[in-house]
Amino acid sequence: MPIKAAVMTGPGEVIELWELDDPVLEPGGILLETVASEVCGTDVHIHHGRLAGVPFPIIPGHISVGRVLETAGVEADSMGTPLSPGDVITFYDVHETCHACYFCTVAGQPNRCPERRVYGITYSAHDGPLGGWAERIYLKPGVQTLKLPETLTPDDLIGGGCGLFTGFAAVERSGMAMGDTVLVQGTGPVGLSAIAFSALRGAGTVVAIGDPQARLELATLLGADVTISLSDVPPEGREEKIRELTGGRGVDVALECAGNPTAIPEGFRLLRDAGTYVIAGHYTDVGEATINPHIDINRKHADVRGRWGLDFNHFYRALRLAAKHRERLPFSRVIGGRYSLEEAGKALADVEALAVTKAIIEPSRA
Amino acid sequence: MPIKAAVMTGPGEVIELWELDDPVLEPGGILLETVASEVCGTDVHIHHGRLAGVPFPIIPGHISVGRVLETAGVEADSMGTPLSPGDVITFYDVHETCHACYFCTVAGQPNRCPERRVYGITYSAHDGPLGGWAERIYLKPGVQTLKLPETLTPDDLIGGGCGLFTGFAAVERSGMAMGDTVLVQGTGPVGLSAIAFSALRGAGTVVAIGDPQARLELATLLGADVTISLSDVPPEGREEKIRELTGGRGVDVALECAGNPTAIPEGFRLLRDAGTYVIAGHYTDVGEATINPHIDINRKHADVRGRWGLDFNHFYRALRLAAKHRERLPFSRVIGGRYSLEEAGKALADVEALAVTKAIIEPSRA
Amino acid sequence: MPIKAAVMTGPGEVIELWELDDPVLEPGGILLETVASEVCGTDVHIHHGRLAGVPFPIIPGHISVGRVLETAGVEADSMGTPLSPGDVITFYDVHETCHACYFCTVAGQPNRCPERRVYGITYSAHDGPLGGWAERIYLKPGVQTLKLPETLTPDDLIGGGCGLFTGFAAVERSGMAMGDTVLVQGTGPVGLSAIAFSALRGAGTVVAIGDPQARLELATLLGADVTISLSDVPPEGREEKIRELTGGRGVDVALECAGNPTAIPEGFRLLRDAGTYVIAGHYTDVGEATINPHIDINRKHADVRGRWGLDFNHFYRALRLAAKHRERLPFSRVIGGRYSLEEAGKALADVEALAVTKAIIEPSRA
Amino acid sequence: MPIKAAVMTGPGEVIELWELDDPVLEPGGILLETVASEVCGTDVHIHHGRLAGVPFPIIPGHISVGRVLETAGVEADSMGTPLSPGDVITFYDVHETCHACYFCTVAGQPNRCPERRVYGITYSAHDGPLGGWAERIYLKPGVQTLKLPETLTPDDLIGGGCGLFTGFAAVERSGMAMGDTVLVQGTGPVGLSAIAFSALRGAGTVVAIGDPQARLELATLLGADVTISLSDVPPEGREEKIRELTGGRGVDVALECAGNPTAIPEGFRLLRDAGTYVIAGHYTDVGEATINPHIDINRKHADVRGRWGLDFNHFYRALRLAAKHRERLPFSRVIGGRYSLEEAGKALADVEALAVTKAIIEPSRA
Repeated sequence: MPIKAAVMTGPGEVIELWELDDPVLEPGGILLETVASEVCGTDVHIHHGRLAGVPFPIIPGHISVGRVLETAGVEADSMGTPLSPGDVITFYDVHETCHACYFCTVAGQPNRCPERRVYGITYSAHDGPLGGWAERIYLKPGVQTLKLPETLTPDDLIGGGCGLFTGFAAVERSGMAMGDTVLVQGTGPVGLSAIAFSALRGAGTVVAIGDPQARLELATLLGADVTISLSDVPPEGREEKIRELTGGRGVDVALECAGNPTAIPEGFRLLRDAGTYVIAGHYTDVGEATINPHIDINRKHADVRGRWGLDFNHFYRALRLAAKHRERLPFSRVIGGRYSLEEAGKALADVEALAVTKAIIEPSRA
Repeated sequence: MPIKAAVMTGPGEVIELWELDDPVLEPGGILLETVASEVCGTDVHIHHGRLAGVPFPIIPGHISVGRVLETAGVEADSMGTPLSPGDVITFYDVHETCHACYFCTVAGQPNRCPERRVYGITYSAHDGPLGGWAERIYLKPGVQTLKLPETLTPDDLIGGGCGLFTGFAAVERSGMAMGDTVLVQGTGPVGLSAIAFSALRGAGTVVAIGDPQARLELATLLGADVTISLSDVPPEGREEKIRELTGGRGVDVALECAGNPTAIPEGFRLLRDAGTYVIAGHYTDVGEATINPHIDINRKHADVRGRWGLDFNHFYRALRLAAKHRERLPFSRVIGGRYSLEEAGKALADVEALAVTKAIIEPSRA
Repeated sequence: MPIKAAVMTGPGEVIELWELDDPVLEPGGILLETVASEVCGTDVHIHHGRLAGVPFPIIPGHISVGRVLETAGVEADSMGTPLSPGDVITFYDVHETCHACYFCTVAGQPNRCPERRVYGITYSAHDGPLGGWAERIYLKPGVQTLKLPETLTPDDLIGGGCGLFTGFAAVERSGMAMGDTVLVQGTGPVGLSAIAFSALRGAGTVVAIGDPQARLELATLLGADVTISLSDVPPEGREEKIRELTGGRGVDVALECAGNPTAIPEGFRLLRDAGTYVIAGHYTDVGEATINPHIDINRKHADVRGRWGLDFNHFYRALRLAAKHRERLPFSRVIGGRYSLEEAGKALADVEALAVTKAIIEPSRA
Repeated sequence: MPIKAAVMTGPGEVIELWELDDPVLEPGGILLETVASEVCGTDVHIHHGRLAGVPFPIIPGHISVGRVLETAGVEADSMGTPLSPGDVITFYDVHETCHACYFCTVAGQPNRCPERRVYGITYSAHDGPLGGWAERIYLKPGVQTLKLPETLTPDDLIGGGCGLFTGFAAVERSGMAMGDTVLVQGTGPVGLSAIAFSALRGAGTVVAIGDPQARLELATLLGADVTISLSDVPPEGREEKIRELTGGRGVDVALECAGNPTAIPEGFRLLRDAGTYVIAGHYTDVGEATINPHIDINRKHADVRGRWGLDFNHFYRALRLAAKHRERLPFSRVIGGRYSLEEAGKALADVEALAVTKAIIEPSRA
């Protein structure tokens, strides 16, 4: 039976509905029935042609949840939990890093490996159902999988989506100390996750700057102690508020989850001397920022850390905590709209318009 | 007998020769006869009014070497080496950090303490001989001192001057691994020291970009494996050379010791993905730089670390190594000119004009 | 009016009630009316003569809460919060580190400074009311103070006592990653705090091994996911349980808060390869342990980290979190007995007999 | 033509000379003509049956240098340097880590991967010429190779052998700061390398404790500033010397490269408070050690770090530095004997008797 998939054929093109052949499983392969996939901000960027090297046509959807239909000899997930048809799993979208190049070995940074492939982003639709906006997903041998713990529904996970893991990775990258005052710039999926995990990791105060009001309410729900509206409060007001909260010093840790270059100079300004600033939200090139190397970095004695995507390490850990702290990580409530494959184009448009915080694709939806 | 001192009375003012009263030693104080002090690039910046909060008139000279004339009950240097009149010592210019504020305690960053005072920079000439451009220097109680090891001459130390310690601190801040390819931007005193200590710490390849030719030769003498002339080789040529040296990847570690904002975008461009970039040369505000947060930090997964000045820790360690490796750290050869107190203004002008790499003040000089 | 104080005159001696003169405040000094102080396991060790260099007679009580009676010119606590008579504060018991020696400067480890003094431990009762088991406490100039936030009662703090901060410091020292499985060995005050802060910092699973049953219930209350009774479950059973919880690997992080050398080999055995083991509970010499360097450290690729006492940094941060998360850190419920000064000897005996987890001294008690 | 190989058939058995079939190269495989292999202390331990899981019969020899005879489609070494028949290369002995298990991914510690295989140790002689004590070595697809730089002879590398890389990894694991006083316990191949790389990385003072006199001379040659004879100087004398060198404090960093459990308590005793102790020399189980958890770790605030074997990262970096600093890393002078395959048993006996520091096998030797 052919597989229906929503295909992005090129930048600016209307999303098309294609039918793909069912894949022949290689040994170690798994075939999933897609339960849900997400529409990520990166999908919007890809649709604008802002990500280099995307082999259009592609089937978007990098973080997904699926039900095991069939495996070619796979009896356990990557951490050893037994796996059977019918089990609901998720998988790490990054694949095929070479384990041999300078980045994989000497630099210890596999996500800069030139061989790296990502489901929903770097595979062509001609290569098979290798993205989540499809009825079924083929997991090639070696794709790292995790069975969803019983306490975790697909909505809990996919409501956070890719941002859940990116936010987690940003918080870990900061090395924040318990009791730190943490500023999260941005209240999209990455920012909301960074808020939630900062709170969960023992931040003293979590301050969120973002928009619109509905997202600020989600920010509070997920653990922000203070929220500041980007549109209602001008830059000086935001700075005043932060100084008031920190004895005039600025925040100990800032996490850029905004994806907008104007956030950068503000982040530096709001950071205390010797603070840590993680740049995690600039997943694509959206322009330049002007900084003052002396004031912002040198005299400030700042630690500035880029964090791009995530390692399996983060994927595993974040999932573990999402299962443990369902009540404190209610990402299912971030879901703003559910769409069928036919509605994938509308889902993309709604995300771009910020009409919804997280849109999910449910291929079984009529 | 009055103390002759060269005094900077204000930005742009001619250096004057003053006479100061001999200080009355408080318990724990030390009086030094100045052997040599340095003219640092920061002194040039101060003379241009580019450093905030300088209480003119001041006696410049933050790193100095002196002979103990008299102590008020001090019998050993800060590390316990016995001290007697006649001994030649140096001292850590930073003083009076409070050990109590947020920066001293919670943030662990005493050099951002608001109470911090620095010899030759933040004391007024009205407060006494608290800078090195004077016949004698008064060390207030608590100033941290180190007796010069016998194998180390005043020239060895003062030829490196403040840059010796700042370069050392920049290398330590990088956390470079043995075998790394390290780029040092700038071949002034800070850059030359960073080159020397990178080599001494087991860098695989040390590349220096700088000017003029005489400094590039010093760079080679101090341990640079490759030097690139900033004026002779255009940006594309510099990038091509770096890529050729690093399998196309860029350097593992870059150390900004240039003090020029144009160095920043180039540093990011020449840094490999997941590399470390220390911003150490921007000791004063010399303008802005434009970066691309996505390309330079986020996707690059960069670690960017500000390093401003130094802690006593660096002062002690750098001195130890300078004594151990005299032949590999021939900073005395960096000295380009020796000046009397009367010639202090000329020394300042020569440093500003890059006519000499390191100018030193010898108050006993006729 | 004289100050009543409970004095430990020597190892094994009966606690005596003394009367001390009211101190004359030096500039920067503060006089407190003691609200409550604690009986710490260290006090038991001191009473057994197991801590070197204690200048008997002493007034025990290192962590205390008091009401400001009078200050000599102090208008704010160490973090800048205004302070007036009547305010309830606590203070960091460590004092007089020199900020100049090798440990304070080069090693960055002030709590190994030879000049270090500790309230309730290293001051003689002849020096004044410098311990918490007294009606009033004299804070010498420079003692670091923190006003209790309004949301935090003295019981919340003193119920945790010294262990609250030591447990916090142990967790920070581990550098645990979110999602890690953490084993806490011991369910005394240090262990209970380590459990609480591990949970608060995003541990995936917190396992506690301890005794008696009442403490295991406190462990669960404070955040342990799994508790194992030391007396009911033999070593093989404990190991079996840990292996079952960790896919056979052992825990990612182990925190020794037991103060018993037999815990050490077990901790190594239960730690996974490349895990981190913090030794925090051995505050005094209680004997030796046998390890296998190859199996326990070398092949295991273990990180073993000693953590002795705490820095002001931990004191400040832990207090901040205790105020923020009162409901998750219900240390007031750890208090098992309240004692007057006259009953201090009984309090000490009850702690030693494990009859109570935390005994507190309330000098105003009749 | 059959391949001659020296085979260890079991613990205590006489080394036999076998003939093996020439392997059929799989795609990505390489066939080497062995130039030289080493006899490592681990080979002695294996011969005593002290390493678990060795699949006798084996062909020992984990670090080797060979000349490329033939490749199955391999055109470059692991870092991209072109490779042709006739080129002299070395290879990383660790192979087949799975890149998927908890240790490879979550723990970031691939050398504890259960799938890990090591040339010369964990492959049976029945599997082919997978060890260096053979005329030819078959490199399976994926084995990581490095072409020897022109400035580096096989003797330079194999004279250091496995110890060269282990010593390097131990120094990196310590995170020592420039200027630190470093103690190396042991002057065998691992210790000598640790001495050389400590010096190369900017140690302030390198102290070596070892034996016999010839090795202490090698220690000095490789960079030790002070050597202490284990047999001539009793423990108290060793401690006295160390205290004299360090102002009574003990060393900043200790590196255990002795492989003897008696070194452990001494290492703790000689380490300063808040120092770092790397346990790197205990590659096999040679017995237990008694420590005092309070004195040695807790109150001392020690960092104790196990380091077992090495990652490719270390292999690459150490080789780079060996090529750069031939004159400062004269490992060829550590070679004490050259043996043919027929003499392999004698080579093993000589190493065990400490008759030579490094024995090498040259299969082409008559």
